[in-house]
Amino acid sequence: MEIFLCGGTIDKHYDPVSETFVFSDTHIYEMLHQARLAKHPKVTKLFLKDSLDISDTDSSELIRCCRQTMETKILVVHGTSRMVELASKCWNQTKTIVFFGSMLPFNVSDSDAMFNFGTAIMACNLKAPGVYITMNGLCLDVKEAKKDVKTATFHKVESKCK
Amino acid sequence: MEIFLCGGTIDKHYDPVSETFVFSDTHIYEMLHQARLAKHPKVTKLFLKDSLDISDTDSSELIRCCRQTMETKILVVHGTSRMVELASKCWNQTKTIVFFGSMLPFNVSDSDAMFNFGTAIMACNLKAPGVYITMNGLCLDVKEAKKDVKTATFHKVESKCK
Amino acid sequence: MEIFLCGGTIDKHYDPVSETFVFSDTHIYEMLHQARLAKHPKVTKLFLKDSLDISDTDSSELIRCCRQTMETKILVVHGTSRMVELASKCWNQTKTIVFFGSMLPFNVSDSDAMFNFGTAIMACNLKAPGVYITMNGLCLDVKEAKKDVKTATFHKVESKCK
Amino acid sequence: MEIFLCGGTIDKHYDPVSETFVFSDTHIYEMLHQARLAKHPKVTKLFLKDSLDISDTDSSELIRCCRQTMETKILVVHGTSRMVELASKCWNQTKTIVFFGSMLPFNVSDSDAMFNFGTAIMACNLKAPGVYITMNGLCLDVKEAKKDVKTATFHKVESKCK
Repeated sequence: MEIFLCGGTIDKHYDPVSETFVFSDTHIYEMLHQARLAKHPKVTKLFLKDSLDISDTDSSELIRCCRQTMETKILVVHGTSRMVELASKCWNQTKTIVFFGSMLPFNVSDSDAMFNFGTAIMACNLKAPGVYITMNGLCLDVKEAKKDVKTATFHKVESKCK
Repeated sequence: MEIFLCGGTIDKHYDPVSETFVFSDTHIYEMLHQARLAKHPKVTKLFLKDSLDISDTDSSELIRCCRQTMETKILVVHGTSRMVELASKCWNQTKTIVFFGSMLPFNVSDSDAMFNFGTAIMACNLKAPGVYITMNGLCLDVKEAKKDVKTATFHKVESKCK
Repeated sequence: MEIFLCGGTIDKHYDPVSETFVFSDTHIYEMLHQARLAKHPKVTKLFLKDSLDISDTDSSELIRCCRQTMETKILVVHGTSRMVELASKCWNQTKTIVFFGSMLPFNVSDSDAMFNFGTAIMACNLKAPGVYITMNGLCLDVKEAKKDVKTATFHKVESKCK
Repeated sequence: MEIFLCGGTIDKHYDPVSETFVFSDTHIYEMLHQARLAKHPKVTKLFLKDSLDISDTDSSELIRCCRQTMETKILVVHGTSRMVELASKCWNQTKTIVFFGSMLPFNVSDSDAMFNFGTAIMACNLKAPGVYITMNGLCLDVKEAKKDVKTATFHKVESKCK
């Protein structure tokens, strides 16, 4: 399994100087430490950005990395605002690609980061090739996933691709 | 989905008076709050005990509850010491029963509780009927699960059921 | 002792819908729970605001409350940006008034909130009447306190009041 | 200021292999990081033990270190069970010596560790030479301090030294 880091709320830090959330280091190593995994995945940092700031060059890099890696199980840590859009571009017949992030930064109390990481790892292990989003305890096929921005939750949209 | 609570390290609290870990309330509601689930499972408290203290009456109650519930997706929160033993008794042809717990109490920093909860929920959603243990990022069929007490990790034992 | 709540970073919450920090409830009751105080102080919420948003009406209310309370030991929970300015207006001959806040919200890991609360309570108990700021482990007379915005730390300014 | 580490609940870690609390590394560096102190104190590890396990040799070493250090402001991180007894032996005319610990380990949620650290630092800065205990928001002269083991709180005993 390989983890590609693309930023998102999960990896934001509060900066007391600017009094805003910023990206500095990733939390993935603390997350792996807490997870106590039997087998450690490979970690590759692509970019740490709010998903609203992801450029075409960034998304092309992610697509290329998903294609080129020898791994067939891929986790993508990503911001939730454009998660469905970017995941849709990673369509793949031979690999299981699971996107996840969190609604609260990893280091805020009550964060959903570790729970979502657990659901993502397990979905990646158990699902057939395809592109999925694991948020709110669901494993959604990217073709039927939608974020409701008013409630900050993901759900399934039956009629989305007709 | 229904969650049966049977105690274990995940639900222990540090008591400053006795200076030991004890059971008082469960942490499951905080865990559900953090998980931000699309759909809330039913929660039933059976007993909060260290798995070494589980009696035959307790285990019979768990087996009976797994059989009687109308739900076909069941999570069992349980201590890790006797998890494989008790899970083995819950064998079932028609329901997906997933046992999990944690190596560190939920309210100790760096706990694996939320991650394990995530893997358990996802395995319960995705696996066919059977009895499973989700620890250390793995989903182990109970027939091939083993806890290595020296490292406090679960792994797969190929030859266990010969 | 009485605690007046005026907001500041210490009481901010991350809101996953707006993806910004907002004020909703105060964290003071969790803070009091953790502090395990021998004697509980009275808590009065005046307003929960970023100190940059405090109006003249707000500051007048704080000054009036400090004057009118029967307590002679007062803690003011306040944002750090305008802490020195507002504290300067609370000058008082007969009461010990201690302002504190934090650089990181209470519910972000590594927050200085509980430490600062500890220094504030102790300074309030031990100091003679006057107005003080307790940040970064210091107890600064308001007349010699300054926040260095580049490092987000408070220090003593010797020559400030000449 | 110098900090002497003598263990106690504050520095205990949960060990998933033995399923008990043990001493491994100290948490003092994380505590100092969170405190965001203007000036860092010197840290000296004497021993990390439950106070019930402190030997005469250990206590002699602590007394000797308090006497020999050039610092006049000393914090002692110590278990609460025998805190009053050991602090009583450190009587000193020229230095301010403050003992503190916590009822919950530093890395358990809701721990009083950081709050107590704050009260201890401030008492050490503000109090005249003497030996003090700062717990539950109080600064107690060692001669009038008592731990109530039934409630796990410290309080003042008026008549203790008659």
